[in-house]
Formats: sequence, structure tokens, C-alpha cells
Amino acid sequence: MINKMSKKYVYDFEEGDPKNKALFGGKGAGLALMTQAGLPVPPGFTITTDACRDFFQQRKQEIDEIVKQLEKGVPPQVRDELIKKLWGIIDTLSLPAGLMDEVREHMKKLEMKRGRKFGDKNNPLLVSVRSGAPVSMPGMMDTVLNLGLNDETVKGLAQQTNNERFAYDSYRRFLQLYGKIVLGIDDKKFDETLNKIKQKYNAKNDIDLDTNALKELVEEYKKIIREEKGEFIQDYWYQLEMAIKAVFRSWMNPRAIFYRIANKITPEIAGCTAVTVQSMVFGNMGMDSGTGVVFSRNVATGENEIYGEFLPNAQGEDVVAGIRTPMHISDLKERFPSLYQDLYKNLKMLEKVNKDVQDVEFTVEKGKLFFLQTRDAKMTPLARVKTAVDMAKEGILTKEEAILKVKPEHVLQLLYPKVDETSAPKPIAKGLAASPGAVYGQVVFDPDDAVEWAKRGKEVILVRVETKPDDVHGFYAAKGILTSRGGMTSHAAVVARGIGKTAVVGAEEIQIDYEKKEFRVNGVVIKEGDIITIDGNTGNVYLGKVPTVQPKVGGELQELLTWADQVRVLKVKANADVPEDARIAREYGAEGIGLLRIERMFRRPERLEKLRKVILSETTEERTAAMEELSEMIKKDFKEMLSIMDGLPVTIRLIDPPLHEFLPKPEELLRQIYEAKMSGASEDKIKDLEKLYKKVEALVEANPMMGHRGVRVGITFPEVYRGLTRAILEAQAELIKEGKNPIVQIMIPQVAIADEIKFVKEKAILPTAEEIQKKYEIKLNFKIGTMIETVRGAITADEIAKNVEFFSFGTNDLTQATFSFSRDDVENKFLPKYLELEILKNNPFEVIDEKGVGELVKIAVQKGRSVNPNIEIGVCGEHGGDPTSIEFFHKIGGIDYVSASPFRILVARLAAAHAAIKNKKSL
Amino acid sequence: MINKMSKKYVYDFEEGDPKNKALFGGKGAGLALMTQAGLPVPPGFTITTDACRDFFQQRKQEIDEIVKQLEKGVPPQVRDELIKKLWGIIDTLSLPAGLMDEVREHMKKLEMKRGRKFGDKNNPLLVSVRSGAPVSMPGMMDTVLNLGLNDETVKGLAQQTNNERFAYDSYRRFLQLYGKIVLGIDDKKFDETLNKIKQKYNAKNDIDLDTNALKELVEEYKKIIREEKGEFIQDYWYQLEMAIKAVFRSWMNPRAIFYRIANKITPEIAGCTAVTVQSMVFGNMGMDSGTGVVFSRNVATGENEIYGEFLPNAQGEDVVAGIRTPMHISDLKERFPSLYQDLYKNLKMLEKVNKDVQDVEFTVEKGKLFFLQTRDAKMTPLARVKTAVDMAKEGILTKEEAILKVKPEHVLQLLYPKVDETSAPKPIAKGLAASPGAVYGQVVFDPDDAVEWAKRGKEVILVRVETKPDDVHGFYAAKGILTSRGGMTSHAAVVARGIGKTAVVGAEEIQIDYEKKEFRVNGVVIKEGDIITIDGNTGNVYLGKVPTVQPKVGGELQELLTWADQVRVLKVKANADVPEDARIAREYGAEGIGLLRIERMFRRPERLEKLRKVILSETTEERTAAMEELSEMIKKDFKEMLSIMDGLPVTIRLIDPPLHEFLPKPEELLRQIYEAKMSGASEDKIKDLEKLYKKVEALVEANPMMGHRGVRVGITFPEVYRGLTRAILEAQAELIKEGKNPIVQIMIPQVAIADEIKFVKEKAILPTAEEIQKKYEIKLNFKIGTMIETVRGAITADEIAKNVEFFSFGTNDLTQATFSFSRDDVENKFLPKYLELEILKNNPFEVIDEKGVGELVKIAVQKGRSVNPNIEIGVCGEHGGDPTSIEFFHKIGGIDYVSASPFRILVARLAAAHAAIKNKKSL
Repeated sequence: MINKMSKKYVYDFEEGDPKNKALFGGKGAGLALMTQAGLPVPPGFTITTDACRDFFQQRKQEIDEIVKQLEKGVPPQVRDELIKKLWGIIDTLSLPAGLMDEVREHMKKLEMKRGRKFGDKNNPLLVSVRSGAPVSMPGMMDTVLNLGLNDETVKGLAQQTNNERFAYDSYRRFLQLYGKIVLGIDDKKFDETLNKIKQKYNAKNDIDLDTNALKELVEEYKKIIREEKGEFIQDYWYQLEMAIKAVFRSWMNPRAIFYRIANKITPEIAGCTAVTVQSMVFGNMGMDSGTGVVFSRNVATGENEIYGEFLPNAQGEDVVAGIRTPMHISDLKERFPSLYQDLYKNLKMLEKVNKDVQDVEFTVEKGKLFFLQTRDAKMTPLARVKTAVDMAKEGILTKEEAILKVKPEHVLQLLYPKVDETSAPKPIAKGLAASPGAVYGQVVFDPDDAVEWAKRGKEVILVRVETKPDDVHGFYAAKGILTSRGGMTSHAAVVARGIGKTAVVGAEEIQIDYEKKEFRVNGVVIKEGDIITIDGNTGNVYLGKVPTVQPKVGGELQELLTWADQVRVLKVKANADVPEDARIAREYGAEGIGLLRIERMFRRPERLEKLRKVILSETTEERTAAMEELSEMIKKDFKEMLSIMDGLPVTIRLIDPPLHEFLPKPEELLRQIYEAKMSGASEDKIKDLEKLYKKVEALVEANPMMGHRGVRVGITFPEVYRGLTRAILEAQAELIKEGKNPIVQIMIPQVAIADEIKFVKEKAILPTAEEIQKKYEIKLNFKIGTMIETVRGAITADEIAKNVEFFSFGTNDLTQATFSFSRDDVENKFLPKYLELEILKNNPFEVIDEKGVGELVKIAVQKGRSVNPNIEIGVCGEHGGDPTSIEFFHKIGGIDYVSASPFRILVARLAAAHAAIKNKKSL
Repeated sequence: MINKMSKKYVYDFEEGDPKNKALFGGKGAGLALMTQAGLPVPPGFTITTDACRDFFQQRKQEIDEIVKQLEKGVPPQVRDELIKKLWGIIDTLSLPAGLMDEVREHMKKLEMKRGRKFGDKNNPLLVSVRSGAPVSMPGMMDTVLNLGLNDETVKGLAQQTNNERFAYDSYRRFLQLYGKIVLGIDDKKFDETLNKIKQKYNAKNDIDLDTNALKELVEEYKKIIREEKGEFIQDYWYQLEMAIKAVFRSWMNPRAIFYRIANKITPEIAGCTAVTVQSMVFGNMGMDSGTGVVFSRNVATGENEIYGEFLPNAQGEDVVAGIRTPMHISDLKERFPSLYQDLYKNLKMLEKVNKDVQDVEFTVEKGKLFFLQTRDAKMTPLARVKTAVDMAKEGILTKEEAILKVKPEHVLQLLYPKVDETSAPKPIAKGLAASPGAVYGQVVFDPDDAVEWAKRGKEVILVRVETKPDDVHGFYAAKGILTSRGGMTSHAAVVARGIGKTAVVGAEEIQIDYEKKEFRVNGVVIKEGDIITIDGNTGNVYLGKVPTVQPKVGGELQELLTWADQVRVLKVKANADVPEDARIAREYGAEGIGLLRIERMFRRPERLEKLRKVILSETTEERTAAMEELSEMIKKDFKEMLSIMDGLPVTIRLIDPPLHEFLPKPEELLRQIYEAKMSGASEDKIKDLEKLYKKVEALVEANPMMGHRGVRVGITFPEVYRGLTRAILEAQAELIKEGKNPIVQIMIPQVAIADEIKFVKEKAILPTAEEIQKKYEIKLNFKIGTMIETVRGAITADEIAKNVEFFSFGTNDLTQATFSFSRDDVENKFLPKYLELEILKNNPFEVIDEKGVGELVKIAVQKGRSVNPNIEIGVCGEHGGDPTSIEFFHKIGGIDYVSASPFRILVARLAAAHAAIKNKKSL
């Protein structure tokens, strides 16, 4: 027994605070809102998240430990055991003291409001018991409908509604849900029995079952319960208590846990679930009844049209499960015009109040409309952008609010490729365009297989008849999802949109055979492992890999980004090494190149060979000569890059990686030597190999990341930096002569000591520039700057700043040095463990470590600016494209720009705007 | 022409400031002191170091560049060319404007004082022109004696002294010095001619040459000059000007440059040389004349007795060059008792004024004593310690001044091994015990060979007849020096003592044959490469390697260290991994073990094998089992270490290095596989090797220094940390049961995140301790602390400090991470270049980098103490034994102790005292 807190746990919809989602959950808050706004809502009450927290509090530590283990993604057997154990623990928990007393009181009020009585044999009150968390987790937790039915009250329901078939239909639904959700019986058992009865009564659909069939089904269901868990207990108060517990428990089901991990919903944000107890209205009372889901705008395209589906003579679960294909919401307009008008008006009202597109569940009971739930809609990024911009124009949102509506990461999905229609590909099937993008991959039929194949580096398309919450891990592993059944609000569609995966659903022509691991469509057989392309923009399915194109940035996205540009403080540049990247970067609005890595220019064999010569030279003369040739080779690359970025600054980093990265691996050479020996190769060949091996061996480093690289090479071999400088500045000189405006920034990497910069400036860069100015009879203008990527560089940034015109934080290397984590090693070896144990909250190579690395960045910015107030400061590590990190860089102040990979330019532009808006707010 | 500054360049000894060595040089200041104290000093004047600086200023940049190149230690040909170039540049320099005018004025005063006239044909004034730098560089720079002689004045000198032989002896000396020093003619040419004349006149020694012989020698010398450099210019003013320039120039001779580098005399400290022009007195006027060097105490033993040598009928150069073996200073007592008394009295006066043992040059001219130079004596560390303590007891020094007299590094030499007399070895020869220590090595006869052999890792003894300044590079390379000629103040003896090399000099029995590369002694032939042992404590020379023993700390050293302990603030602990080290540490006064590295316990084959099993285990069970066995094996080592340190804290670091360090190298395995294949080994053997290879390959890390190591292993494999903890704490428990007082501190390495500590405490250390307490029915008491050796650890020291009882800075790793320098790689590959280019002033792995690493240490101390004021903080990197670094650690405050290798404990104790005294002073 836990002490009754002085808390109130239960609130009628009339008393709940619509703004307090943390306490009432999304569903509870929405119902309070709708009730208080006068919408037709079946009366009910909400049990707060406090009650849920107090429920778990009893054995919190044990539960937390198991959850942590589950988070690891243990093998299925272990997982099942852990869940069993977890649920065993939860089974021992009692509801917080006093809760059921409060529930009883509120049930009494409910009885008064509905004029029915809970458990009454003549006029029974039925309720739904539903979950509702502060953060929306659609379909992840459990619901029990039609509670209040037993062998007696079912008769009362029949009498009350004058519809025996309906009563038994409701009862069999209740028994199945109760059996599954509350008692934990495998759903298959019920489904199999249902199918058996359907066969027996020759019914195609469940709506075709008559009263007798349903009565038999009820008896069969009770039998299942008896066999599995003992006699079905008829006491409806007991059932209610059990259902409330079950909903609490469902907070901890593996689906919900997995969803929270995948969506980075931390315990602090997640809170716990509230429970809504609501009097039932029935969509299954005939063809003038039904249940539906409607969005206040099109959640796929963003068009301003209400949009959704309606399934006649059905209860809520049927729509989501995609069991029958529903009708489009517009059909409702004809069938129930005034109901449609009501729906429309109220939807728009809710949208305005909630300042977002709404996702509403409703039920029609004998022609009367009831609202069961409203929540902010999940949509495709396309729709997210369009609705945000439209709503700003309509005055529902301010521009800044509109910007904040669009998560920076989601913009990435707008850049998903589209099928190149110029190649006129022929689809083999067509379904609904449920989630955008055009992707190809190898077909798999099982979510576990999707995970396995993805682990092996394969790109897969998960193909299913329909999907269930238990399949979600497969969604994350797959590039796209294809189903043969279900509509735009089916599970597959909703989840795919939510996590940004391409999906085509309801492609009814295809016939899937799980056993054979194949599907057939129009005579074609596609087997596991075959490649298909699915187009989530059109719903088309193609055989093989179909050419795709990169979409342009236009329309509402362009508009939103323009607003973002107006509000953001940080500039956005691109990390781009090759012309293709530079072109994309420029198109996506990069304000220059923040990092051009010369290294990628050495990938061509003739250049790599020359570079090896540079590295293996034994004299300065030899090295200088080889470097000059290499310099000539790469000059044209610089010209091309500078041309593309004409008029915008291009920051070129002098060579940075450990030199041996460009050499063959010693082990490989050793193998070659022995293979040569064993195959009886000539003495000369073996000698040559041995000579090369010795040279390469001599260059091997114990810790190359902290070895002979970056500026250190510029100091030991200034001729190398001279050659690189020559290539860059001659490119600039030639472009100037051609009338162009190339803006060059030369960046020195790995600096730890101010004098390193002095040396390479004086011994390599400046004299080379001097020569080139003479040679071309031209005045060159370029900046010299440095990476801040060693810890010492950051700590002595004041000394360094005196010698440069710009800083660029190399946060990847800085993170390595700060943690003493070699990225190559830790990401495989122990970082996953650290994340699992929550020793680290995030991978510090993805999200900036504010306390450690961030502190160094702060120190360096402050010290750098203190001696050189006009120094330009940027960030060119991977963190430059990460929204959380961008917010940090904005907040600390003094940073001018971030530089991100070309595809993340839009993300960065938007994230920078978010940071500016949020920071303004917090001031 | 440079503008005449408004400076005064020239000062009579009467006007010079005895305290201003920077301006007057050591010699100039000493002469001013003695003159002003009324000692008999031949009058003269000093040209300041300002003049020298202004002289070089004219082409400073070019000169500096060449000097930097010379500092590299280029090959002989390059070196010679560079010197040629350097001297070519210097030859173009003119003396600062107005300098010679001032010199002429002061020469006039000098003529008045001596009643002689410069260049006078009847009564000529002769002068010496000598160098004198602010920091003593004995024998490194040049001197010209007897200047003022030419074909005319030599006759005047003969007339003046009524001693023609003396006049020509002086003239030939002048010609030789002038030819060599001023004109740069190879000295050999003069020596060969001297030998020819000696043969011709059948003279054994140069004192046996008569006037005619000397006249002929003069003519021959002039001929040499004519042939080499053109007619000898008789103009004495020209000669004087040239001599002053030559002395300036000698500041830049390679010997001087090399000496400054070797002794870390930076340009800021070094300054430039002053020039002293002093009227000559003559030790070569007969057997009642002579020249000597005397120390106010014994510079080898420190005994309070004046000590030195006197060479009758000779000039200064003869003593230092060791041409004839001089008489002991005590012989002077009998021959010139009052002179001896004067000498003694004045020496003691100078000692008191200068607060240090004095090294005095004097000349006796026809029975009259003249002081030519006084300076602080260089001595053996033994003498340094004894004289400092004695002088403190005599009231000349305070205790703190006495402590500051002894350089911490020099104490190391007091710990030099001694020959183990119990083994009763038989010496093959005996010389003078010139510089202490007993060392063995292979015989080499050439300084260049010494360098070469040392490079190849050989230990060598340099054997020479006598040594010259040009041989000094060989001293640094050799472990000891043996000469067959020369006394305690000979070049070999002085230099060896100065740089702390063991030396035996004047072992006259041995006959060296440079040609054959061998020496003979009493019928034994010792060839190049043969091993000998020399004992610088006794002067004995032994064949082969003779057993040595480690000296105890006692006598004055003990006294001095006790004073040091009273004044120092930092405690001193030891880095010790094995019992032998622990014993030494305790004997040398370590206040505990600051770092015990478990790793060394795994060197034994059976343990290494077990550890490999731990590393290669595939399951936790397998690993746990192997670890438990290993734990049992190492427990006894902990018991032994804790017993030795009974009552003192022992800080044990849990395993730290990358795991693969304990595995065979993959390349080695690959070789074995191929060799097995080629030799037709069995399939099974090859398969086993291949399996091992695969496993080892999988563990290879790109940057092991930043990989899976330290606490990260404790987190991924808590069973490993549990096993180690078990071994440590069971050892402690068993010792407690035995009535001992083991004090255990467990230290966690590589921490970057506070939660790492929490995890290993909760999952490994504390539960294991709990088990052991139960098992032994005992209450354990131990501290848990952490290394601060990652940058993030330092920056988040406040969070970390909440979880530990002590910090220990691992400044080696911290330096690596701060610079992003992998020590394994940089020390060979580019650090030498950085030091050469002065991008780094010191090797940061030897001397703490104050601006970078030091700043992190400061931050961490401050943050750590802010949340945990009583936390114990130490330093256990190599810097813990480096005096400069120790001073830094003292200065920043908040650090409790340093931990150094056992042999550096005394150094650290003394350095800590120095730091405390200096810091007090600077307050």
C-alpha cells in the first residue's frame, strides 16, 4: 500500500486544463478542450499522469533496470523473458490508494450525464479506457473499448439499443480487447477463432456475421480466456480496475519503449500516460454509424482541405488496423451534409485554438457526430512546411511560429529524390502515396530480416500485407515500406510518415506469399532480394532500380527559408570538396564553402601515385619536384570549385590527414611479399616489394590521429604546403585574369601552437604568394586562418588569433581530443555501451558535448575575440549541421557561421533560425 | 657605419659595477669587485656586453639564421661551410662607432697607471684581451695575451725586463695566439713548428728553449702568418682593434654555440660577451713567476681547504691546456708563505662577498701576486652540497640560500653508483678522481665515434690523451671520460664535472695509440670496443664491467634535504611498480606511492598468457573465470608492495593501457602464418594461427591511445575491474589480519565523464569490497580516486570531484591530448624539428606546457576544489619529477603532492623546496 497523496487524480473533461498535457496527456487535454469549447464529446474523465507515476513508483528501480536492458535491443528470447519479468513485476503493483474511490465518484457523475448505469442489466453504461501520454505516441499503447459488458449487461445493451447483433458485436470486441490487453492473451487465438466462425457462417467480413454467429463467437472467446487465464470474471468494477492497470502497464510495453527510444523521447519529456475513461458511443450500430479519423488539412501534401477516412459500422480500432478499406471523408459530405459541415467548422476551430493542423477521431452514432480525440497532426515534411507557411499567411501563426513548426531535420526529407519521369519508367503496381521519396532496395518480407539485412549493409524495402506496432523496428531498418492493404491512415502510413520513411500502402494488386518469400503482381514474381523502386510521391512501384532526380527548393519551402534567413544570426556555409557538392551547396543557399578538403582530390590513381612519391621522397629536392607536378594537377580542381562559388568565400584546408593514409597498408604489402615468394616471383619483384614495405613500415604511426599530419607536415616539409598554396593561388590568379571574382581563404589544420602558423605563413604561404603575384603580375587577396581542433589551439586561441584572420572549429577532432576517444575505434567498441548505460546521453560526434567540447569552444571564441575582435569564426565539424549543436553555437555568441554538408544546408539554415527565435524568447 | 648610441661602452675596473654581470660579464664584474676591494689586480678596463650586441646587430638576422642551423648539429662539411659563412659575415662587421675612441682614452689612463706606453719601443705596455660573458662559459671563448708586441716593442720589453728570453717567449706566444684567434690560422701549424724547433734545439719542454731558439720561432711564426694571411701587420692599435673584434667573434664560435645549447643557456640569459683589456703581468718571467688557478674550497669533495694548481714560469693558457703537470697549491705555502697567506685571506673574503665558492686565476710576477679573475666555482654535486651546507653552518649563507645553491638535477649525480669494494676488483690503472660516479662502457678514442656509437645505443667511455673544447660533443655522448694527461682543472676535468659525467684524468700509466685505436697499460692492450669501468670517485680504472652499488643518502645531503623538507609545501611520492622500486623510493624519502601501474605485473609469461585469455574471451563467464585466476596470481605482488610501504599510502591504478598491447602483433602472426605455410606445417597449426590472427586483428585499433582502454575497459568488462579490485583488497585484508597497516588508494584511469566513475564504483569496486569484507570479516578502508588525464576530465573536474576522494594528474596523457601529439610518434618524427625551429621551447613531455596543459591543470584544480575542498590532488606524470614543472605545480596552488620515479625523489624534494623559497621571495 502506498500512502494516498493529497493529490487529486481524476478530473472530468469539464474540469481538466486543456493546456496541461503533462498532467492530462494529449488525449485528456484535447477532450477537455473540446468539451469546454462546446463540441459534442461523449462525457468522461481523465486519470492524471501523476497516478501513473505513483503506480510505477512502487518498484521503480527494478522496472527501470529492465527497461534499460530492453533498450539495448537484446535477442528475441531474452527480450521475451525480460518482458515477462517486467510484467510480472507490474502485476504486483496496486493502483495508487484512493484512486478507485475517485474513479467511482466520477463514474457516478458519468452515469448521471448519460442517464445510464454502469453494470445495469437494463440500461448499462459502457466506457472506453484509453491511454494518452503527454507526447503523442500513436498506436503504441493500449485501449479497451466497450467496458461494462458481461453476460448480463450485454442483454441490457441489446434491449437499450434494440439491436441484439450490435450488443454481441460489442461484447465480442470487448472480450477480444480485454483478453488481449488486460489478460495478455495472444491476439492470434482470437483472430483464428474469428476466422473459423467466419468460415463456418460463410461470412466474408466481420460485418457479415449475424447475431447467432456473434453469440457463438462470444462463447468461444470466453473459452479462450478460461483456458488461458481462468474463468472470465464478470465483475465490471474489477474489469474497470484491471483495464486502468493494463493501460498504465502498456506504458511499459516493448513497442512503447522502442518508440520512445527511436524518437528520443527521454523519460523527462515522456512523463507517464494518463488514462481516459469515456462513455462509449458506437460506430458499430449500423450503416448510419461509423468511425473516422480526419485531419484539418491534407497531411501528405499540406493542401488546405479536410482530409481523412470514415469506416461505416465500425469501431475505432478497425480504421487504424486497416482491416477494411475505408471511404474518403469527402464522401461524408454527400451522405451527411450537415454532419460534414459540423465536422469542418469544429476542425477549423480546433486548428485555430491549437495553432496546428489537427488529427481528430470521431464517431457517428446513428447519424450523430461525436468527437473522441483531437491532437496535433503528424504529417509529411512537405505538408508540415506548406501548412506552416499557409497558416502564417492566414494569420493563425506568426512567421516565427511557422518557422518553429518545421523541425530542421525534417527538411531533409523534402530533398528526397524523385523518380526521373524523363526516363519514362513503367510501374508494375500502384498504391497510395503514403510517405514521400523515391527509394530502391532489395525486397524483404519480415521486419527481423529487414534489421538483419540492414546490419549487413544492404538497402531493403520492407514488403508486408499490412503492418502492426510490433513491426516498427523493421521500418527503421528499411529504406521504404510497401503494403498491399490499408489506407492513408493505416499503421504503415502513419508510422512511415512519422519517422520519415518512404511508403506506398494499399497496393492491392500485389499478392504476397510470406511462406515462399515472394510477391506476385500482374504475372511478375518478385522474390526476396530482388530490387524494386517505390515512389512515395506517386504510389508507383517499379521493378529494379529506377533513375531518380534531386528536387529543387521552391514554393513554400523557399518562402519558409527566406523567413528563416531573415531571423537567423548564424551564417551557413558548406563542407564541399568536389564540384557536384559545391553546386548543390550553392543551390541550397550556402553562403560560401566553409571547408574544402584537398584530400579528396588525391583519389585519382595518377594523383595518388604522385602523392605517394611526395610522401616517400628521401630528399627535399625529390619531394619538391614531385609536389610541383602534383600541384599542377590539382590546380584545375581549385579553378573549377572557385568558379562555381564565384563571389563567395571558399575556405580551403591545407592537407590534414596522416600521410600513411595515402600509402598501401603494410600488412597488405607483407601479404604480397609472401604471395610473391610462394608463387616464385622474380627476385627483383620481391626486392622492390620489400623496399616499399620497409619505407611504408617506417611511416607507420602508433596513433596516426595524433601523429605526423596537418600543420606538422607543413613544418617538416614546407615544400608540400608551398605546392598546395601554389595550386590554390595560381587558380585564383588565373580566374582573376579571366574576370572572375574568386574569394580564397587558406586554412591551416591541427594547429596547437601559434608559432606553427607563423612558420608556415612565413616559410610557405607568403613567399609562394609573392612569387605568384610576380608571375601573374597581379595583386592577390586572400585570408589565412586556422582550424581550432586541438585542445591547445582552443586554450591558446588568443595567441593564435593574433596570427590569423579566421578560426574554424574542427569539432570532430576537438571531440576526439577532449574525450581521448578515437572516433574510428570507439564508435564500434564502446560508445554503444556508453549510450546504453546512459554514461553519455548523446553520441558526442553527432551532438556537441556542451560541458566539455562546448566549454573549449566558448573559451576559444572569447580568447580569440579578446585580441582580434574582427576575426571571423565558424564551425566546420559535423556538428555544424546538427540542429542541437547549432543552437548551442548560436547561444554562446561570437560565432559567425556554421558549415555543413551540402544536404544539410537547409537543415542548418532552419536550425539557425530556430536557435535565434528560441534564444530571443528566452531572453 | 652604425650610429654612436648615447651609451658608454668602456669602464675602468674602478668604475664598473661588480653586481652587473649582464653588462660587464662575469670576468669584468669580478675584476671590478677585486679592484674596488683593494686586491692586487693589474689595472685595465672592460668593454660592455652592449658593445658586443651592437656589433652583431648590424647583420643580426643572417647571423641568427646560421646559428640556428648550426644548432641542428649538421654534418661536419656543412658545419664547416656554415662557420666559414658566419665568419665571413662577421668579418664585414665594424666595431660600434666611437668604441675605439673610448678604448684609446682608457688605454691612456692605463699607460698612466702602469707608467708604460702602448707601442713604446723602450717601455711598452702589454695588455691581454679577454672575453667574459654574463654566464660563465669556461674555455669556450678566446683570449689574446701579450698584445702590444711587434718587432720593435719586443726589444723594448727585453730592455724593460732585462730578460730577452722572456721577451721573445712572450712575443712567440702572442704571435701564436694572434695568428690563431685573430687571423684564424690552424693552431697545428704553430704547434708543428714549435715541435720542429724543440727538436732542432733538443728541448724537451718549451721552457727549455733559449733566446735564439725563440727568436727563430718568432720568425717562423711570422712566416706562417705571411703565408696564410699576408704580412704580419705591426701596428699595435690595429692589432688591438682586431683582437677586440676577434673576442666578439668568438661569442659565435661553434664551441660556444654548442656549449650554450647543451647548457640550455638561451639568448635571453646568455646576452653577449664583454671584453676585458688588462695590462699584462707575466708568469713567464722565471721560476719566481708563474700562473695558477685556485678554488676557495675543494670543488671535488667540498672540503673546506683551498685547492688548486700552480705552474711556474708559465702563462695562463699553459695550466688549462694541461701541457705540463702543475704543482699543488699547497706547495706554494712553502715557497711563498706570505703570498700564500695573501691568497688565502683574499679568497675567503671573495667567498664571503660573493656568497659562493670562488674560482680564482692569479699570476705571480717575480714573487708578486696578482689576481686576474674571480668567479663562482663549478663543482661536483658532492662538493656543491657539502659547501652549501657548510657555508650555511658558517653563517655565510642562510639555510634557504644553501638549498637554492644546489640544482635539483645535480642531486641525481650523488646517486651515481659506486664500485662495490666487497668484490675487491683490481684496477689496471689509476688517475685523478675528476668527476664522480662509477660507469662502464666500450672504449672509443674519438669524440665523433662516441657520438656515432651512442646513436647506435652503445654505452661508451671516451679515452683521450687530453681533451679540447672541440671534443665536448663526445662528452655528452659518452658515459665517462678517461684521459692520460692533465690535472683536476684540466679541460676534461672541468667539463666533465660541469655536465655531470664521470671522469678519470691524468692516468699517466696508460699509453694511447690513436692510430691503432688502442691503449696499453702494464702490458694489457685495450682495443676500441673493449669494456672498461672507470671510477670517478677514486680514479681507478678497471678492465671489464665491475659490480657497482647504489650509494645511501647521508651526511650533508641528508642535512640539506631535511632543510628542504622543512620549507617545501608539496609532498613527494613515488611512481613505483615493483618491490625494488618501492624500497628505493622509501629509502629516498617518498611519502607514499603516487602511482603503481598494474601493467608491469603482467610481464611474466604465465600471467601474460592468462591476461590474453581475459582479453580474447568470447563470453563474460569465460572472461570472469580467467580474470579470477589472474587476480589470484597478482595478489601476492600487491601484498609485497603494501608491506614495503606499510603505513604509507599506495595509489594503485586500475589497468590502463590499450588491451592489444598485451597481444602478439598481427603482422608478426601474419608472418608466422606464411612461414608455417612455406615450411609445410600442419593444417591444424595454420588454422590455429589464422584463428588467433583474426581475433587479434579484430582488436586492432586505429589510435589505441584514444581507444578501448582505462576506465572504458572497466565499463565494457566490469569483471576485469572486479578481478583487479579483488586482488588489491584481498591483499589489504590479509595484511590487516597480519597486523600491518596497508593504506590503499584505488585509482581509475582515463576518466572523461563523471558517470564512468559512478559506474565502475557501483558495478565493480564497491560490490567487490563488500564481498571481501564479508569473506575476511573485516572492515576495509580505502580511497577511490581518479586520474585527470583526459581534457574532458580536467574541464569537468567539478562533476568528477563529487565522486572521488583524490585526483592525480596524468600529465603525460594530458599533454598528448592537449597538443594532439602522440608521444610514440612525435618524439621521433617532428618534435626534434619543433625544438630546433623553436616552435617549442621545451619538449612538453619533459617540461610542463604551462600555457596549454598547465592551464587545464589550473582549471581542474580550481573546479575540483570548488565542490570538494578536501580532495587530495597530486601529479603522477613524468613532470612530477621535473624541477621546472614542480615549480609550476607549486605556484598554481591547490596541489598536494608530486609523484616521481624513485631516482628522482630527491630531485623532487629539493625542487619543491626551491619552488617554495622562490615563490616566497617573489611574493
